[in-house]
Amino acid sequence: MPVADLVPEHAGSGPRTMSELRCDPLLKRWVLIAPGRESRPDDFAVATTNGQPDHPCPFCEGNESLTGPEVLVRRSTNSTANGPGWDIRVVPNRYPAVAPEPASQIWKATAGFSESGWGRHEVIVETPRHLPLTATHAPEHWHRLFEVFQQRLMDFRTVAGLQHAIVFKNHGPAAGASLMHPHCQVIALPRVPDAVTAELQAGEQRWHQAGKCPRCELLDAEIEAGTRLVATAPEVVAWCPPASRFPYETWLLPRQHSSHFESADPGVLAELARQLSGILTRLEQVVPGLSYNLVLQTAPLHAPALAGFHWRLEILPRLTGMAGFEWGSGWFINPVAPERAARELRCNDRLGEGG
Amino acid sequence: MPVADLVPEHAGSGPRTMSELRCDPLLKRWVLIAPGRESRPDDFAVATTNGQPDHPCPFCEGNESLTGPEVLVRRSTNSTANGPGWDIRVVPNRYPAVAPEPASQIWKATAGFSESGWGRHEVIVETPRHLPLTATHAPEHWHRLFEVFQQRLMDFRTVAGLQHAIVFKNHGPAAGASLMHPHCQVIALPRVPDAVTAELQAGEQRWHQAGKCPRCELLDAEIEAGTRLVATAPEVVAWCPPASRFPYETWLLPRQHSSHFESADPGVLAELARQLSGILTRLEQVVPGLSYNLVLQTAPLHAPALAGFHWRLEILPRLTGMAGFEWGSGWFINPVAPERAARELRCNDRLGEGG
Repeated sequence: MPVADLVPEHAGSGPRTMSELRCDPLLKRWVLIAPGRESRPDDFAVATTNGQPDHPCPFCEGNESLTGPEVLVRRSTNSTANGPGWDIRVVPNRYPAVAPEPASQIWKATAGFSESGWGRHEVIVETPRHLPLTATHAPEHWHRLFEVFQQRLMDFRTVAGLQHAIVFKNHGPAAGASLMHPHCQVIALPRVPDAVTAELQAGEQRWHQAGKCPRCELLDAEIEAGTRLVATAPEVVAWCPPASRFPYETWLLPRQHSSHFESADPGVLAELARQLSGILTRLEQVVPGLSYNLVLQTAPLHAPALAGFHWRLEILPRLTGMAGFEWGSGWFINPVAPERAARELRCNDRLGEGG
Repeated sequence: MPVADLVPEHAGSGPRTMSELRCDPLLKRWVLIAPGRESRPDDFAVATTNGQPDHPCPFCEGNESLTGPEVLVRRSTNSTANGPGWDIRVVPNRYPAVAPEPASQIWKATAGFSESGWGRHEVIVETPRHLPLTATHAPEHWHRLFEVFQQRLMDFRTVAGLQHAIVFKNHGPAAGASLMHPHCQVIALPRVPDAVTAELQAGEQRWHQAGKCPRCELLDAEIEAGTRLVATAPEVVAWCPPASRFPYETWLLPRQHSSHFESADPGVLAELARQLSGILTRLEQVVPGLSYNLVLQTAPLHAPALAGFHWRLEILPRLTGMAGFEWGSGWFINPVAPERAARELRCNDRLGEGG
């Protein structure tokens, strides 16, 4: 695994086995920051094919017939639906995790522990071009993609029964991607996941105690500490969270409190796009060929504006895997301290401007 | 990914996108059983090296000097410590996730959200032989390994400050293994993970309500239902849990209630070993080259015998990865329904005997 190639944090300057147990105060999610794990040898050489696939790519321009009909598209005025001439295209996932309509269950469980897994599972084809994994989009294009995310979230509000949507991107094989052509996904669900509910409840509780959203508090604390900051601007701040689950994990939050991504205004989206594009470029320099997940954490579709929940975009690099220890404990092991990760990600003139 | 090669559950016999949302009643852990995901195409051909490593294997007999000194060993009477002549050898992990002693933290967090990550991280070298990934041990050898697990758990009770231990095995690269030579690991920790505490509390609560351990209830229900059973005997029962997170996930539980693995008697260990060996052999037939994790879920080191907690050994095959959706929702997506998994795993004369 690529982690083995990195220089240990404490090499030559202290005990290599220094580890720290950290907990996200809101999520109660524990992480072992364990720099001594980095330099492990690895018997398994993993080769990835980065060339053209052996099948026609369903997401390339000209192959529109290989997907279901587009549910949302940005296309030139003189083009026709489900043909060439688009720059972002949203289609149903051909291998959906959820069925389009409710159905009966196999498992006849005690009430409440089994239900139909229905909803929407869509692919957001980010570009007509079959870009290599090492490329990322210019800020302007990420901005357009964010507008598409917003539109899908707004549209899902009109589908009776849908409660929550997860917008995400799996980039590269170690991040769970099966197709190389750049694409995001969105899964809309008939119930709010417990992890999301738990964060909403913890946030509202903190708001009632302290009169402030806990993520706004964290944002202030991280700006003051500075050691984990990656980029700041009047609209958006990026940092490596203290209890990072993954090496180089980075969160991007709007500076002004907001619970719903779909209400973000163009100024926030533009700055978010600028920072995301810069950080992804920098990550590719720091760890070439990196796989990562992007996850948008936003409030449930029908929730009112929430004083205790603050939306965020998470970059989750996948240099480490979940293994036996993680399944047994629910804890993560992260060999790169977020203080070091932020320091490396900041070494870029394009970041850290403003604010 | 290998999942793409499997025959879809519902191919030609119903809607391919039928999905079911299932929750483990005790753990409140949700899973999307999504057979439609199985037949996805995959651009990323992953090659694994299954031959000899390019470095001397630290776990092979004769290379004992490449590890730290053995902390526990089964060796022939005429051999010397840290030399050849052993059949199971426990050594400190060279790249530990936890430090041997407490140390100060980097993150000066609010009290309670950061502490030293200390404890014990050991490797249990299962055999002196550099066996291929496709091999598993005979039942007699698994039995000896279980006795070593018990001994380590008992020994950790005598180390002041250690509260909980996770015994696990990462088998194959997709399961997080970095070395091929068969080995288990154990990590002993200075606090009980929240996920374990939550299961203990939910179990005690259920016991007070129903007068019965919830896993004993589940065991009875699974034997009665039969559809998810893999093997039964008077001492040990194996089944694919209804809310399986992973394809072919299998749990092995002692039929007689017991909260601590270290109190299991030889008859239980012998049957557990027989079933584990048979199921791993069968798994290799069903999905050749499979990576998997083994996780022992047992009570905290200093807990008294608990009426509401029941130890178990989990087999967690790694055909699917955690990706953006899983991080965003806390839910798993499993493309193989456990009813089908159990049916395939049962097709073996060595299993299903007795009881």
